[in-house]
Amino acid sequence: MSSYLHPERLFSSDPIQRQIAQNIYQAIKDLPIVSPHGHTDPSWFANNENFSNAAELLIVPDHYVFRMLYSQGIGLSELGIGQGKLSLEQSHKVWKIFADNYYLFRGTPSRMWLDYVFAEVFDIAEPLSKQTADQAFEQINQQLAQDNFKPRALFDRFNIETLATTEQPLDDLKHHKKIQQSEWQGRVITTFRPDNLTDPEHPKFKESFRALGALTNTDIDHFADYLAAIKKRREYFIEHGATASDHSHPSAFTADLSDRDKETLFQKIRSLNYSPEDALMFRGQMMTEMAAMSIEDGLTMQLHHGCYRNHNAPLYQKFGTDKGADLPVQVEFVKALQPLLSKFGNHPDLTIILFTLDETTYSREIAPLAGHYPALKAGPAWWFHDSPEGMTRFKEQVIETAGFYNTVGFNDDTRAFLSIPARHDVSRRIDSNCLARLVAQHRLNEDEAIDVAIDLTYHLVNQAYKFK
Amino acid sequence: MSSYLHPERLFSSDPIQRQIAQNIYQAIKDLPIVSPHGHTDPSWFANNENFSNAAELLIVPDHYVFRMLYSQGIGLSELGIGQGKLSLEQSHKVWKIFADNYYLFRGTPSRMWLDYVFAEVFDIAEPLSKQTADQAFEQINQQLAQDNFKPRALFDRFNIETLATTEQPLDDLKHHKKIQQSEWQGRVITTFRPDNLTDPEHPKFKESFRALGALTNTDIDHFADYLAAIKKRREYFIEHGATASDHSHPSAFTADLSDRDKETLFQKIRSLNYSPEDALMFRGQMMTEMAAMSIEDGLTMQLHHGCYRNHNAPLYQKFGTDKGADLPVQVEFVKALQPLLSKFGNHPDLTIILFTLDETTYSREIAPLAGHYPALKAGPAWWFHDSPEGMTRFKEQVIETAGFYNTVGFNDDTRAFLSIPARHDVSRRIDSNCLARLVAQHRLNEDEAIDVAIDLTYHLVNQAYKFK
Amino acid sequence: MSSYLHPERLFSSDPIQRQIAQNIYQAIKDLPIVSPHGHTDPSWFANNENFSNAAELLIVPDHYVFRMLYSQGIGLSELGIGQGKLSLEQSHKVWKIFADNYYLFRGTPSRMWLDYVFAEVFDIAEPLSKQTADQAFEQINQQLAQDNFKPRALFDRFNIETLATTEQPLDDLKHHKKIQQSEWQGRVITTFRPDNLTDPEHPKFKESFRALGALTNTDIDHFADYLAAIKKRREYFIEHGATASDHSHPSAFTADLSDRDKETLFQKIRSLNYSPEDALMFRGQMMTEMAAMSIEDGLTMQLHHGCYRNHNAPLYQKFGTDKGADLPVQVEFVKALQPLLSKFGNHPDLTIILFTLDETTYSREIAPLAGHYPALKAGPAWWFHDSPEGMTRFKEQVIETAGFYNTVGFNDDTRAFLSIPARHDVSRRIDSNCLARLVAQHRLNEDEAIDVAIDLTYHLVNQAYKFK
Repeated sequence: MSSYLHPERLFSSDPIQRQIAQNIYQAIKDLPIVSPHGHTDPSWFANNENFSNAAELLIVPDHYVFRMLYSQGIGLSELGIGQGKLSLEQSHKVWKIFADNYYLFRGTPSRMWLDYVFAEVFDIAEPLSKQTADQAFEQINQQLAQDNFKPRALFDRFNIETLATTEQPLDDLKHHKKIQQSEWQGRVITTFRPDNLTDPEHPKFKESFRALGALTNTDIDHFADYLAAIKKRREYFIEHGATASDHSHPSAFTADLSDRDKETLFQKIRSLNYSPEDALMFRGQMMTEMAAMSIEDGLTMQLHHGCYRNHNAPLYQKFGTDKGADLPVQVEFVKALQPLLSKFGNHPDLTIILFTLDETTYSREIAPLAGHYPALKAGPAWWFHDSPEGMTRFKEQVIETAGFYNTVGFNDDTRAFLSIPARHDVSRRIDSNCLARLVAQHRLNEDEAIDVAIDLTYHLVNQAYKFK
Repeated sequence: MSSYLHPERLFSSDPIQRQIAQNIYQAIKDLPIVSPHGHTDPSWFANNENFSNAAELLIVPDHYVFRMLYSQGIGLSELGIGQGKLSLEQSHKVWKIFADNYYLFRGTPSRMWLDYVFAEVFDIAEPLSKQTADQAFEQINQQLAQDNFKPRALFDRFNIETLATTEQPLDDLKHHKKIQQSEWQGRVITTFRPDNLTDPEHPKFKESFRALGALTNTDIDHFADYLAAIKKRREYFIEHGATASDHSHPSAFTADLSDRDKETLFQKIRSLNYSPEDALMFRGQMMTEMAAMSIEDGLTMQLHHGCYRNHNAPLYQKFGTDKGADLPVQVEFVKALQPLLSKFGNHPDLTIILFTLDETTYSREIAPLAGHYPALKAGPAWWFHDSPEGMTRFKEQVIETAGFYNTVGFNDDTRAFLSIPARHDVSRRIDSNCLARLVAQHRLNEDEAIDVAIDLTYHLVNQAYKFK
Repeated sequence: MSSYLHPERLFSSDPIQRQIAQNIYQAIKDLPIVSPHGHTDPSWFANNENFSNAAELLIVPDHYVFRMLYSQGIGLSELGIGQGKLSLEQSHKVWKIFADNYYLFRGTPSRMWLDYVFAEVFDIAEPLSKQTADQAFEQINQQLAQDNFKPRALFDRFNIETLATTEQPLDDLKHHKKIQQSEWQGRVITTFRPDNLTDPEHPKFKESFRALGALTNTDIDHFADYLAAIKKRREYFIEHGATASDHSHPSAFTADLSDRDKETLFQKIRSLNYSPEDALMFRGQMMTEMAAMSIEDGLTMQLHHGCYRNHNAPLYQKFGTDKGADLPVQVEFVKALQPLLSKFGNHPDLTIILFTLDETTYSREIAPLAGHYPALKAGPAWWFHDSPEGMTRFKEQVIETAGFYNTVGFNDDTRAFLSIPARHDVSRRIDSNCLARLVAQHRLNEDEAIDVAIDLTYHLVNQAYKFK
């Protein structure tokens, strides 16, 4: 039997475990999708225009997809990247390259997500191949031109209850405003991501620093002014639905300086006359300041540090950011977060969600930290680890120490809107299968497992992000 | 069927593997318990008084249990911690909080251990829940008041053959003396843990250093005097049954200095006029000195470095040590242990047992080291990793390189006396299941697997700790 | 049923997965062996003389085997190591020690490889034990004396299509020349391993540097001269069949210096007046130079950094290199390789194969790098990780991000010639079992899985090493 969307995919082939997994999955498969962290474009939902075509929608913007093709020697230009709006003919060419090389995705989550999109979203009967490429292109494009494939219609059809996007702190959030003011009931909210204000080495720091003063009508002479201005932006984001902030620094380092030291450091940063150590210290102090603000304004803090951005220099120069060359690096949390956690980690009003690309921290650092500090929760298997094996490792390495209730369910972190149901389905299946293993080994009762599965899918995420 | 102490719990649901696991488990389940490393209180066995009640016995002293409750926002004071002796009413309140939140332990080893204690030690028929909380509290307390629930009776009933406790090097060991002099045959021995003498940055170093001179009638002017005084304490511990020493430093660093450099370093330490680098070097040199003494006096050396103690500053200030805020950090062994191992690692009379909280060292460092150096053995999955998944990872990552015979069986490392049989049972089940997998995949014969299981459960631990 | 070469060994005991694994295995088990990276002795194939006896062939030269015996207190001298040519009586004694202690190998890949050699190569009916030791010794020795057990006959019987050995860059390659000039058709080729020229801290650097000038008739006054001389040696190796170079430094650090800085650095190195930092920088720059040469001459670059050589100082002094005391250390690739990869990682004519002993880099660094850079491929589970669990972890941690097609199949990396079919068989069985799991969970079709298995076994390795 073909693997193409088999109803029991991702479940163990052991009949006992499989049957239990099915029982658990039945209890969660139709729950609404809560997507608390992602990178879809809010203008889609604000303007609700039809997507163009299969290649421009599914290949060109998705670095999960084109990085695999690139790694096998297919140029980004051949894939239509950095070429502006493509003609239908150009798009068709891109699609054919993709289809011809679809075998490269064997064994990857991209393959499962794409198969799901083809089968479930576009109702395509045959798996993608060289032979079916043209017909699939045609069939997808035809559907994309219809009203019921407009962004809002898909959002509703996907049964999405909440979808968070991510914006930089100076964003005017006009798309979110438009969505809020529309008659459409879909809940699309923003997330406050101030890296360009918290990291002096961010490429846009200088420009953002200046713009912040103007935007908030503030003379930013002292650190207190700076914090006050940022606070205003947080308030603006909260007005537009934000319930969380999102932080990505090169390392997890935090600091807890005296007021005098903060001011001295700020003046160095402000004058752009600082060392790498100063920059590190500033980032670290800003995390602690963000935590302090979160206690006041209630934004849940998401930390996902430890990524080497734009590793491939010539590619970055030619094509810019987000071209598949952001790479994980080793990360350390226990020492790095100590200043922040000792200060605020016991606070009942703070929620910090910790993500990582360095799986070695699961059992060594994240689970022991989340299993102790009331403020800290373990975020899900993330990015490269948002995959069947990756999620299974997360469960096996985190739960025994942190328990299920110090985790926060799944997030898809995607800019590929159409893949959202696919990704949540994979997560629900893996949750079901992992829980089924515990039940099959008599470590948990089936009714408990079903409770946990519902909590992971729905309640824990709503709670951690204060959606409900 | 309920998971509550299912007879086949923790075995694979694959019928072939499960049957083999059962066969192996039958051969080891009734072997005596050998517990070579732990933190039970010797006064229990010296004085043999009844334990007070369920909450004071099972919740208040067990950081595995209360850290999970704390992580979900339940204050330590609410749990009776740091409150001195609790009234029965206070204890009952603590118990109810625990029972109400028992679902938090789903998927954790604590849940399995506690269920075992309830079912096997106290013969409680129903799983703990809000509904059964009061009755369980009552039932446990009634039994605890009986003679056959006194510490020595439980020790005998648990079929414990040897139980090691851990004491600091200036301890008078009066409880052990009392046990030795009693008519009771139970073997409760001490372990020599000299961190407060080997680590200048230990909070009690200064005070211990002074006390050591007085206690051993030594003028400690030179490094040789210091070593001689420590040697006397080792002898004192050996007289009271010790067969092992136990060492925990922030890192695994070792050194092998010249006599002149040792003396210079010692004088700095002695005068309390030293840098962090000096402290590190002193700890490193002391490990090598301890190995030298072990070759002479035969104490097995246990190393379990790599823990950030008392991470949560305000909690530590209020409640002191061992409150669930000791956290693993990255650790490195290959470079760190090279001076010690190059000097003594080939010695036939030395046994060093290496533990870790950093699982990344299993396949990269510990297994390759233990598979080469005659003196070095891999200790079991430890602390946060003393769990079904943790022990399985240990087996899968260590055995292929180190073999079974460079490991030393299980230890429970617990202060929760009643959980000892539960913990050993989990270990025996996981051993059985892991070995069964090898047999089911035709990588080992079933009779070989049974031999190995018996060795892991009994012979290897007795041998490594020189109990028999 | 005995585990001794069971036909379904290493497959899951789940009947569904096992049947699929069998189907896949049938498609690959008889494919020719391609062995692109190893340490067999080319003189065996040049001179084609009979091997001496079981102990001298299977125990004395194999550090996988004797390190386990040594770790359990059996001296290397007892095992005939460092004793020169052994008498038959001495060899017999070594063999008996080995057989008496064969139980130590339970659960290790060595046990599986040795069982295979006994059963398949020497047709021995009973598993090795104290009881069968003498007969096995006799039986193996008798066969080794026959013509059809000469190296070339075994090579042909093993169905080896290509076998690469490894030589240092000043080697005269006379054995390879002799093989090339013989009538025998077996393809035994060399590999260019220039660590003694690229690493100033290599014990033979000074001597090799001098010899290089003489051998290439070059006055090596400037960096350009040095590179030109190395290039000549690469050409010489290519004439003798080399298609790959092989590099092992203490760390993966690379550099991309200006011409002026290169020359300055070179003069320091040349004068042997350099710091550890200079040595590191030189190694790093030399990697980039090697990559530049590879783009011109086509040699595939193999990088396997991160090993602490000769860790056991007294053992090294007495017995020399390769005595089981080379140990893995932590390694970092993302930052370390950035200079090289940013310069050459997008080049279509370069292939770099990355190996590691630090499994933490699989999912964090190697898979994300290989899944992006066209030049980079992930080498197989290596050395200590060339084992059933090790290979399974590799598959589970690498494939989801890098895909199968950014890996390069298996290599045996062995000096134990007779174990080559055994090692490839283990790899093929684990590939089959891992793929079967994907099929059983409906993540891949069975026909796709068979395609992938054939690619992993044969096509990908031939392609990466340019054998075909």
